[in-house]
Amino acid sequence: MVQGPPADSSGSRFTPLVVLELASDTNQDAIAWLLSRIRDQQQDGGAELLVEQLGPGVDAQEKENPNVFLVGATWQRLLSGAEDVGLFKEFNDGSMRGFTCANKHDFKDYQGDGDSFLSMAECQYIIKHLLDTLRAKQETHVPGHSEVKLYPGKSIVRRLQSKGILVQVFPLHEKEELKRLSFSWYGKVKLSLQPLDDIRHYYGEGQALYFCFLEYFTFALVPMALIGVPYYLFDWEDYDKYVIFAAFNLVWCTVILELWKRCSASLAYRWGTLSRKKAFEEPRPGFHGVLGFNPVTGREEPLYPHAKRLLRIYLVSLPFVLLCLYLSLYVMMIYFQMEGWALSVHDQEPSFWTGVLLFIPSIIYAVVIEVMNLIYRYAAEFLTEWENHRLESSYQNHLVLKVLVFNFFNCFASLFYIAFVMQDMVLLRQSLATLLITSQILNQFMEAFLPYWLQRRRNKKMMRKVQKRRTLEDKELPLAEQVRLEADMSTYLGTFDDYLELFLLFGYVSLFSCVYPLAAVLVVLNNITEVYSDAFKMCRVFKRPFSDPAANIGVWQLAFEAMSVIAVVTNCSLIGMSPQVKAYFPDSESQLILWTVAIEHVLLAFKFILSFLIPDVPKPIQISLARLEFESLEALKKKTKSTVLQCGMREGGGH
Amino acid sequence: MVQGPPADSSGSRFTPLVVLELASDTNQDAIAWLLSRIRDQQQDGGAELLVEQLGPGVDAQEKENPNVFLVGATWQRLLSGAEDVGLFKEFNDGSMRGFTCANKHDFKDYQGDGDSFLSMAECQYIIKHLLDTLRAKQETHVPGHSEVKLYPGKSIVRRLQSKGILVQVFPLHEKEELKRLSFSWYGKVKLSLQPLDDIRHYYGEGQALYFCFLEYFTFALVPMALIGVPYYLFDWEDYDKYVIFAAFNLVWCTVILELWKRCSASLAYRWGTLSRKKAFEEPRPGFHGVLGFNPVTGREEPLYPHAKRLLRIYLVSLPFVLLCLYLSLYVMMIYFQMEGWALSVHDQEPSFWTGVLLFIPSIIYAVVIEVMNLIYRYAAEFLTEWENHRLESSYQNHLVLKVLVFNFFNCFASLFYIAFVMQDMVLLRQSLATLLITSQILNQFMEAFLPYWLQRRRNKKMMRKVQKRRTLEDKELPLAEQVRLEADMSTYLGTFDDYLELFLLFGYVSLFSCVYPLAAVLVVLNNITEVYSDAFKMCRVFKRPFSDPAANIGVWQLAFEAMSVIAVVTNCSLIGMSPQVKAYFPDSESQLILWTVAIEHVLLAFKFILSFLIPDVPKPIQISLARLEFESLEALKKKTKSTVLQCGMREGGGH
Repeated sequence: MVQGPPADSSGSRFTPLVVLELASDTNQDAIAWLLSRIRDQQQDGGAELLVEQLGPGVDAQEKENPNVFLVGATWQRLLSGAEDVGLFKEFNDGSMRGFTCANKHDFKDYQGDGDSFLSMAECQYIIKHLLDTLRAKQETHVPGHSEVKLYPGKSIVRRLQSKGILVQVFPLHEKEELKRLSFSWYGKVKLSLQPLDDIRHYYGEGQALYFCFLEYFTFALVPMALIGVPYYLFDWEDYDKYVIFAAFNLVWCTVILELWKRCSASLAYRWGTLSRKKAFEEPRPGFHGVLGFNPVTGREEPLYPHAKRLLRIYLVSLPFVLLCLYLSLYVMMIYFQMEGWALSVHDQEPSFWTGVLLFIPSIIYAVVIEVMNLIYRYAAEFLTEWENHRLESSYQNHLVLKVLVFNFFNCFASLFYIAFVMQDMVLLRQSLATLLITSQILNQFMEAFLPYWLQRRRNKKMMRKVQKRRTLEDKELPLAEQVRLEADMSTYLGTFDDYLELFLLFGYVSLFSCVYPLAAVLVVLNNITEVYSDAFKMCRVFKRPFSDPAANIGVWQLAFEAMSVIAVVTNCSLIGMSPQVKAYFPDSESQLILWTVAIEHVLLAFKFILSFLIPDVPKPIQISLARLEFESLEALKKKTKSTVLQCGMREGGGH
Repeated sequence: MVQGPPADSSGSRFTPLVVLELASDTNQDAIAWLLSRIRDQQQDGGAELLVEQLGPGVDAQEKENPNVFLVGATWQRLLSGAEDVGLFKEFNDGSMRGFTCANKHDFKDYQGDGDSFLSMAECQYIIKHLLDTLRAKQETHVPGHSEVKLYPGKSIVRRLQSKGILVQVFPLHEKEELKRLSFSWYGKVKLSLQPLDDIRHYYGEGQALYFCFLEYFTFALVPMALIGVPYYLFDWEDYDKYVIFAAFNLVWCTVILELWKRCSASLAYRWGTLSRKKAFEEPRPGFHGVLGFNPVTGREEPLYPHAKRLLRIYLVSLPFVLLCLYLSLYVMMIYFQMEGWALSVHDQEPSFWTGVLLFIPSIIYAVVIEVMNLIYRYAAEFLTEWENHRLESSYQNHLVLKVLVFNFFNCFASLFYIAFVMQDMVLLRQSLATLLITSQILNQFMEAFLPYWLQRRRNKKMMRKVQKRRTLEDKELPLAEQVRLEADMSTYLGTFDDYLELFLLFGYVSLFSCVYPLAAVLVVLNNITEVYSDAFKMCRVFKRPFSDPAANIGVWQLAFEAMSVIAVVTNCSLIGMSPQVKAYFPDSESQLILWTVAIEHVLLAFKFILSFLIPDVPKPIQISLARLEFESLEALKKKTKSTVLQCGMREGGGH
């Protein structure tokens, strides 16, 4: 089964899966109470998990937190938990079905006790779910911490988290598995696809879908890059040929997004997340309000009036976002002034240094944009937190929306201005190149190398500490050290930033690449290094994240589709502005504009029709899903048939 | 319970609900076999219904079809059938739940035997479902009709229908109920809302939703009509004020469609169709192909390759539709030539008759359009039939799409041409008025008065026949005569034409009414008479239709939304073409166009955002649905808890 780190002398009698770290000043009563609640039988309202305190590290004299606990579970508990969370597994007949303990022997990979039926990531997800749904009974507060109020039905772990008593919960890495995965993923230099199933096995479906999307996006860009290269090589700088390129862009971005939906549905079906029903969502840890009864569950929980939240969104957040957009516009205008100034200096006395000076404003602007994005990100997080959303998913959606709009504006406003107000294609090309290259370098640095360097320093310190105590026989850290090392690693904050980066790259390519065909080549190169650096940071820099049983890329699909609609508009305008097309309407500019607009409308309509015509789920999977549904309907009918007699018997005669 | 026609001397021992009419030359063996299959117990594969031959009419010597059968069911059979079709009923706690025999006593209106728990429409729907799912066992053909092939699992009724042996299946009217309904619906002249719940009770949800939509649409038009009247009264013919009207149009058509979704969801929830799951759809009667195994059900049924159907659609139907559109354009150009000729005649020697002549081309064109629509409709039905769709729903969607596109083109092409190519607002206004009024008069005539007149003639003939035989004591027809009378009534072909008419009216109002503000007034008046004439034809002209448990207006919602998008485009263009707006851009026409286009794009984007922001289902219903789902999840969990022990016991120790 699960291949955890080997149990050593300081080790445990069970495979540790998840680590709980409590604050070092937690009251002993609270700890004892929490552990007993975790260990309690299910019928007593406990989570029925195994839990044990982590032994002291090698240098126990140093000030280290003693309140670190390892959580595991028996094999039966994990199986019943798998049914609880609604895990889908491959059935004997090849279809994916919700796992149930009752017919576990009918599932394909089930071979009895302790086999590899559940991956470690799944086990960890199950344990997280069981911990999250561990509810208070009659306690009014956590023992020893009277400030941490509880009420019947409140999730204990979430309350401890929101009060800072529970510092972190994270799943442990599997050393061997990780080594194997990282080798097949980024260890080999040979060209090959990513080991998506292994990634899913180790990190869960959400992560695997991100990497799959990254790969898909890269491959989708290859034809564009291939067309772009000759443009650059043969110096087709007359901007005449870009009409073809823009037209290609148009079709390309619609088609790849539609095909991705099918691709994602296939993967999600294979991984069993496509038809999995979401469990009822708990309020997020930070959610607060007046205690009342949830109209859906009937449970006691904080309620916060929806109208008040809407007021906060529309009267505070929306104006703030608009203000930030205005600020971003203002910065953009300053950039253009600087640009103009540099140009005038260069024109007066052209020299090598004034030539360099020409690039300075763009570089400064690119850096300023990154900094503004960063600051705005914090503000957006603060505001979204303050909006007090009940569900994590709605919090995420509002955050994504805020960040997305600002990032889009920040990155593309100047390009739009240059393209459509200044109508200066040379400057557009130059700005696009500068923005693209600068942001790529910055991103790769901030994302992978900086955290890695920080992590390596910590790692080495720990190694040195350990080696000071005793000679290391097998170069492997003992469990206690390993856990503490992982606890110190940075926390992976989800795929948000990774998707955002892809979104902006997609924007550069689909909106304007016709004036700078090399953009696609640059993005392809960037994506290839991105695969490596992302894989590297997942394996080496961050704590293992809990797996996230995603069925699709969620709100990002929508974001990419919105971008592709905008791409139709920009590409049509760029075509309309090209000298070639203008030559067809020598007399009347309004005729030209009217035709451009008409064609744009037809293309938009065509795009919408196309997205209706191409089914989102491939036929075989549709059939497979329909078969499952049909079978459950038939089963229901059989049940009905047996109740028919019941009806008849109780009713006696007819009407 | 069900208040059927009273049983008379020639009558039956059960309440007849549905009538089956077989061809008069049907073999007696086939009849005996069919009746026994209908009467057989469920465990023997029968439908377990009551069925009886209709006695001879009063004048039996005349050539009348003896093979008319009345179908009914016992009360228990109807209840178990209600569970079978997944009927939703009001539970004790006020929520809507799927009916089950096991807990029938927990449903609100259930009072035991023979009460009014199920409406007659529901009973008839259940019987139709039970007849439709009566399947062949080992028969290879219908006894006595070796040409009517059968195979195990084939729906007997559908096969008999497609071979013409089963002439028709229709539910019976309830005389008393119908009298009461028609009085409260259109009998009173006083202004009041339609009795929607009664309509739903008698005709089912699909019909009721149509009438509700008609009412909603009429009320939504009232503000527009109110604004339109002063325009007409005070002769604001300078076309200057239409900017305000166009802007109002824009907001109006977006908002009413969004609100309708909420309104429709509320109704569907109250009627129990919102969360009802659709049963697996049978192939439609006309579907043919090579016998094979359905990949979903595993049943033997004809299969027809999807690729072949796609070829037929894209290589035959699509070119045909395009050809028809071209033809329609051609006719339109002829109309404009006639129009020009009439104008030139009028200009040469203006007299009263030449003034009348001016209107002749428009009237001829309106009539030609109606005729073309009619012919095209038959062609579309033939083509869609030929495309050989497996499901009735997909057949309907393809038919609606074909008819919709052509009707839209036919009705609006000339208006678009006048508005945007000729830019002649006076002609546009005149054409709009002519088209609107002519098509309304034609429609009302074709739809209600003509069928009513034909029906009354038949009715009177029947009455006279009956009176010839015996003096009528109570002016009520005996059951046998009543059934034969209803069998002769026209068949109601669904809400298709009614929705189509509303769709075109919506188009006239939303696209162009700013140049002819009286359009809204005309449409309101038309809608009011439409309510009466539709109600009248439902009650008096047509056979009772089987109820259709619809949860929304289906593909029509999409059609109306598409129209509202087009309305944004046309209204923006009309605003851009107005002299007022043109005055702002005296120098540059392209500036004007660019601004118009920019504003149009912003409005379109805003429209899409708005449709995201306004939830489709009102909050209380969302909560109610979520509660049901939560409860079923909790029930599942409880079931899981009991299997936990099972898991534990069988597994023994941990891992």
